[in-house]
Amino acid sequence: MTTVRARAMAGPADRFQAVTIERRALGPHDVRIDISYGGICHTDVHHARAEFGETHYPIVPGHEIAGVVSAVGTEVTKFAVGDHAGVGCLVDSCRECDNCRAGLESYCRVGKVLTYNAVGRDGQVTLGGYSESIVVDAAFAVRIPETMPLASAAPLMCAGITMYSPLRRWNAGPGKRVAIIGFGGLGHVGVQIAAALGASTTVINKTADQRDDALRLGAADFRSPNDPSTYSELANSFDLIVSTVPASYDLDVHLNLLGQDGTFVNLGVPEKPLSIQPYSLLTNRRSIVGSMSGGMPETQEMVDFCFEHGIGAEVEIVGADYIDEAFERLVASDVRYRFVIDASTFAGH
Amino acid sequence: MTTVRARAMAGPADRFQAVTIERRALGPHDVRIDISYGGICHTDVHHARAEFGETHYPIVPGHEIAGVVSAVGTEVTKFAVGDHAGVGCLVDSCRECDNCRAGLESYCRVGKVLTYNAVGRDGQVTLGGYSESIVVDAAFAVRIPETMPLASAAPLMCAGITMYSPLRRWNAGPGKRVAIIGFGGLGHVGVQIAAALGASTTVINKTADQRDDALRLGAADFRSPNDPSTYSELANSFDLIVSTVPASYDLDVHLNLLGQDGTFVNLGVPEKPLSIQPYSLLTNRRSIVGSMSGGMPETQEMVDFCFEHGIGAEVEIVGADYIDEAFERLVASDVRYRFVIDASTFAGH
Repeated sequence: MTTVRARAMAGPADRFQAVTIERRALGPHDVRIDISYGGICHTDVHHARAEFGETHYPIVPGHEIAGVVSAVGTEVTKFAVGDHAGVGCLVDSCRECDNCRAGLESYCRVGKVLTYNAVGRDGQVTLGGYSESIVVDAAFAVRIPETMPLASAAPLMCAGITMYSPLRRWNAGPGKRVAIIGFGGLGHVGVQIAAALGASTTVINKTADQRDDALRLGAADFRSPNDPSTYSELANSFDLIVSTVPASYDLDVHLNLLGQDGTFVNLGVPEKPLSIQPYSLLTNRRSIVGSMSGGMPETQEMVDFCFEHGIGAEVEIVGADYIDEAFERLVASDVRYRFVIDASTFAGH
Repeated sequence: MTTVRARAMAGPADRFQAVTIERRALGPHDVRIDISYGGICHTDVHHARAEFGETHYPIVPGHEIAGVVSAVGTEVTKFAVGDHAGVGCLVDSCRECDNCRAGLESYCRVGKVLTYNAVGRDGQVTLGGYSESIVVDAAFAVRIPETMPLASAAPLMCAGITMYSPLRRWNAGPGKRVAIIGFGGLGHVGVQIAAALGASTTVINKTADQRDDALRLGAADFRSPNDPSTYSELANSFDLIVSTVPASYDLDVHLNLLGQDGTFVNLGVPEKPLSIQPYSLLTNRRSIVGSMSGGMPETQEMVDFCFEHGIGAEVEIVGADYIDEAFERLVASDVRYRFVIDASTFAGH
């Protein structure tokens, strides 16, 4: 076992505190990754504040991890010391169910193990990326090309794959019209991916002064949900809409933007059920689907795709002492577009 | 113009009355079909009782029409006098939009013309199949093989295509597990089609004494929605579920029956919006979709498929004087499985 520095919350209303945590001894299939940057995802806030069911305190959040391999187990061939590597939402799964065998570990039927606030197969509560290093089975780490900036790569491990997977599955590409609702941590990466896939991409976002950023990152159009012309002019026009909005909102007016056989991907988990008028789906034979991150093969494919196309998150790098304030600003949508923690700042305590 | 006998309702609470209606003079692209049988669809009840928005009275319902061609326009090559033919939900569409050009006339963007209770492009209110004959553009009639029984073929024109289209589009076939919710006019045809396509087909239906009929028509299993084991034993097991239920019910427990990448097709139009928990879609990357009948090429394909596989509706043949009682029994689900009006009985008045 190794002792490493981290930041943890002891209760749902507490502030983050400097702590030391134990990382397991390196097993034959494990790698140790010295973390360079850890992204702050909105999910971290929900778990830390016990807004998503049970939280195991003290909690060390973080599932957008990028760093450098510092040790490899005896059976590991995928990584060598010094390689750059990333870890996302999962650190384990059953590996035996149909979905795991198909590389769909995020849909594991038996029990996937989330990177933090979960109980691993060894019975230990998992502790995430707000820390100096992590030990993880090499099967749940992906290679990051050496010249890819680690700070902007870290958020790809959750935000990137969560957007890439549905854009690929529902055929974003040349000749397709794609809309992305919400231009935050997920949306701003999704626009880059959709545009790189060749789709004509429209952003629908209420913060009008993000228009320039959206266009710079590849959007062909930027529309406000507060402007009625958005819904009249764009009716029946999209092949695919990916909604990153985590709250409840009027789904019908957005479904009405889908053309024939169009697909609406809902990534959010609002507290209330989704409410849909039957004719919103009957018209144009529309679909609404859920999508939950992506599996390990597709996560590697996504990193390689992003590297090839120069895609990364736009980040504000913060120190470990700033996490509480980053949470507040994230809740207030005051970030362009992702906070990442510089893990070297854990050493300051 | 030709005068033909029909049955019409003059107001939402009236009884059907014997009337005469005008059919247009045969145009060069038209056929006249002497109706042999007209199916009674639940939609007829809704329109006749003004439960689906505006109704143009007097209304002559009926969009499940099978009969014999008695006249053909000068430009018609598809039919000859004496051919058997069917007409379904549509008698016209714009024929120029993308969907019409793709043979998806039921999704016409400009204005499809329903077989009854609609206003045609000539400005006349359309009058349906509760009548002796109909004049229709040959493009909106399909060929019925000569040896196919017309009484059991008539309901295929709505119930058949409404089930066939989603079963084909979402790949019911060998190796696939399909569930059909509801075993009425639509469901009992859907089971036959799904089984003939090669899918292992389960019926979920609250009327337990229809089990034998379901198994006889090709179902591999028959389950009750009132038995909790239905939802535990069948969880995550279906590739495709087609729901024919027109009322509101618990969608989440049924979505939970879908396995990875499974699709739930909703055909019904309940009064309340559909309500769906986000995780019902996120789990297994499930979809819920709408499907609205089918276009003309697929309707012909469906009739040919049903003929080849000996598929037809199970019908109770009634006379024109029985329509009011048939409506009552239909609303009470007291029919196995489709009423069809013997059009020769219109001559009794």
